[in-house]
Amino acid sequence: MKTHQSKRVGDWIKDAGVSAITVSSVDMARYFAEDGWKDITIAFPCNIGRVQELNELAQNISLTLLINKPETANFLEKHLTTSINTYIEIDTGSDRSGLASNDITAIKELITAIEKTEYINWIGFYSHAGHSYSCRSKQEIAEVQNSVITQFENLTKHIEPDFGAFEICSGDTPCCSITDNFGPIDTISPGNFVFYDLMQNQIGSCTPANIAVAMGCPVVDKYPKRKELIIHGGAVHFSKESITENKITHYGTVAQKVDNYWEPLDNNSHLIKLSQEHGIIHCSNNVFKNYDIGDTITILPVHSCLTANLMRQYQLMDRNGTTVDMMQ
Amino acid sequence: MKTHQSKRVGDWIKDAGVSAITVSSVDMARYFAEDGWKDITIAFPCNIGRVQELNELAQNISLTLLINKPETANFLEKHLTTSINTYIEIDTGSDRSGLASNDITAIKELITAIEKTEYINWIGFYSHAGHSYSCRSKQEIAEVQNSVITQFENLTKHIEPDFGAFEICSGDTPCCSITDNFGPIDTISPGNFVFYDLMQNQIGSCTPANIAVAMGCPVVDKYPKRKELIIHGGAVHFSKESITENKITHYGTVAQKVDNYWEPLDNNSHLIKLSQEHGIIHCSNNVFKNYDIGDTITILPVHSCLTANLMRQYQLMDRNGTTVDMMQ
Repeated sequence: MKTHQSKRVGDWIKDAGVSAITVSSVDMARYFAEDGWKDITIAFPCNIGRVQELNELAQNISLTLLINKPETANFLEKHLTTSINTYIEIDTGSDRSGLASNDITAIKELITAIEKTEYINWIGFYSHAGHSYSCRSKQEIAEVQNSVITQFENLTKHIEPDFGAFEICSGDTPCCSITDNFGPIDTISPGNFVFYDLMQNQIGSCTPANIAVAMGCPVVDKYPKRKELIIHGGAVHFSKESITENKITHYGTVAQKVDNYWEPLDNNSHLIKLSQEHGIIHCSNNVFKNYDIGDTITILPVHSCLTANLMRQYQLMDRNGTTVDMMQ
Repeated sequence: MKTHQSKRVGDWIKDAGVSAITVSSVDMARYFAEDGWKDITIAFPCNIGRVQELNELAQNISLTLLINKPETANFLEKHLTTSINTYIEIDTGSDRSGLASNDITAIKELITAIEKTEYINWIGFYSHAGHSYSCRSKQEIAEVQNSVITQFENLTKHIEPDFGAFEICSGDTPCCSITDNFGPIDTISPGNFVFYDLMQNQIGSCTPANIAVAMGCPVVDKYPKRKELIIHGGAVHFSKESITENKITHYGTVAQKVDNYWEPLDNNSHLIKLSQEHGIIHCSNNVFKNYDIGDTITILPVHSCLTANLMRQYQLMDRNGTTVDMMQ
């Protein structure tokens, strides 16, 4: 839910039969709890400074946190007034957060510390294999997924005899997109898949036709010699996440609507520079001559999570362009 | 005003004797007009799709726009119901928007087109010398400023005989920060100077002690082998604007408060990776051992405009940490 941050989009996911969700902040957990979600995981190392809000949340929903250190568990035990569930985060190769999957001593110590508490219920392990973002093909992504599965199989051999059965939750968008092979993984929690974007296309998770959000920006100026259109669409709209394709570093690609999806207009029309409010699109002759000042141009974003977070609302392409709100 | 986006910060600027302001969007113009500002320039190529809001604004304030094309002037003339002022934007080397300063033919044609209108009052030229951002010393910045001055002196020689006296507004933060030499420039409109940031320090516009905003982020996890602290402070808080210093690309530098300013703790403790909500600080041994889970760590931002835009409120360091609102 951290990509769309919208109760309305959440409704569609509920309609598809989902009852447990993952978010990436306490604020998002509160927002979706307000909308009736009763089983929420905050997939972020527990921020102990927010314990009062965690207590309030846990009174109304089944709340699952990530606890990666005994000191976090000890602090929570002292300050929690309602029981919560916890995963221990396993670093399966992303080098972001979590315990190394082969650090069995630390993992056992942490489970033991948690099991001594009254308020924290250890339910298993969580992993976000973010190193899949450096993949550039389905095969490379599958290798990451296989490594994650192997690590969890080994971990299970060490942990299950002493501590019994547990759950495994894993799931970055690339791995969840390209495989049905989940081995011992019980639940998945990808985020970006709800929209996809040009970065996921480059990784190999999707095609451009799978991308479900685009930016509509007004053309405000144009420069024939440079073949550049100036749009109102800058760093405060797109974010400064870029990708490099065919040696061109850019922040988005010009697209058009075809049936019920978008497709890039050509391979040569990209959003190449951003300042706070300005975007500069360097484009092919054909694209340049088809857009005048006052027109709206459609651009597929590089990183839909960050772009959506900046725009804070969606306009539907059907249903008369209804506006869909996000968390404010 | 586009950097701070805050009525309250605007009050301090008003108290300093400023009565005319520059913003970068129609929304910001509305926000500050609501607060009583009566002379506002929207320093962005006029977005003709917002003409109705421009009419509403122009009824209450003296509104100045940038018009860079005869077709924009013609559209506005048909749809404006109240008079507005306009600058013509001159591209003094930033290759973003505006007419080249030596394209006298196009500039004269545009002035002539505007002077034929009833509702648009041509008042002069505007320039944002954004190419000063590639400077790395005061001397390089001074060279950009001298070039801007020379271009405007030449332009004046060509334009004044035919069209009479006019105003020149220029002013990127680097040029405005390092010189008192403004030649024929009448007014300046820097934005970032209100806070400064690490990028301006790298350019040569300021020192770290001049930086007036910092991010306070909770430490949520730490990894001794990697000497890395995990903070709740990601791409949705800092933006993904980075700088490269001493071969390290980063999104912020760990700092401490000394008297009434911040200073970097050392040269080796930076925010080196960002995902949506996570930040990874790679730090010196000394910094690593001084921060525990639950502590707040202070980080100077790379680009304060984008970071402020994401955070949407400020907390004052004095006056009991009063919260200062921004445009929502």
